[in-house]
Amino acid sequence: MEEQRMDPDALAKAFVEHYYSTFDTNRVGLANLYQDGSMLSFEGQKIQGSRDIVAKLTSLPFQQCQHSITTVDCQPSGVNAGMLVFVSGNLQLAGEQHALKFSQMFHLIPTPQGSYYVLNDIFRLNYA
Amino acid sequence: MEEQRMDPDALAKAFVEHYYSTFDTNRVGLANLYQDGSMLSFEGQKIQGSRDIVAKLTSLPFQQCQHSITTVDCQPSGVNAGMLVFVSGNLQLAGEQHALKFSQMFHLIPTPQGSYYVLNDIFRLNYA
Repeated sequence: MEEQRMDPDALAKAFVEHYYSTFDTNRVGLANLYQDGSMLSFEGQKIQGSRDIVAKLTSLPFQQCQHSITTVDCQPSGVNAGMLVFVSGNLQLAGEQHALKFSQMFHLIPTPQGSYYVLNDIFRLNYA
Repeated sequence: MEEQRMDPDALAKAFVEHYYSTFDTNRVGLANLYQDGSMLSFEGQKIQGSRDIVAKLTSLPFQQCQHSITTVDCQPSGVNAGMLVFVSGNLQLAGEQHALKFSQMFHLIPTPQGSYYVLNDIFRLNYA
């Protein structure tokens, strides 16, 4: 993510595409997007720090998955040029007949290097 | 909302109950929860400022509705003791047979008076 001069909506969309394509093809690669102070709430479980967050994401009980994004909203978070990104979409797990609906929000904070990291990440499946 | 000494999860839950009970019984009363710098994204439409946000919410094409909350997640937003609150639930409109599923996030910022206001609000229906 080195797209700081893009407009916020384009930046949010680029982040979302990068995040989910990394999730779907190389989950370990998500480590670069989190820092020690990052927090993930995954289906109600709170996990802090890049290492533990990626340990959680790589231990999920499925090998292959594919995210399809339905909506992306973004707003400035009012802090240090941070940005709130709100996503809804579908998650298809390998071998499962039906996709799962999900919603997820990210709070992105710029880094001194001109990219962004995820300070806050909240994920929920939307059960029918 | 004058519950600053509650723990964050209890505070988030109290906010959510207050917000949706106000929405369902007295939508105009939501004006107190927003300020001039507040932003609402409602189904992709961005609206800024308490007055325009409440004008939008009160102009929605239904009179009576009832929110039922399924999940509430919260995290500190890293700014001025701010808090991110992520909600999923169902929205029942008067006269409609089926409830609509929704997800919504709020970024709450403390006020000098010891309560909180909504800086960011993003709402999406989750269509089946």
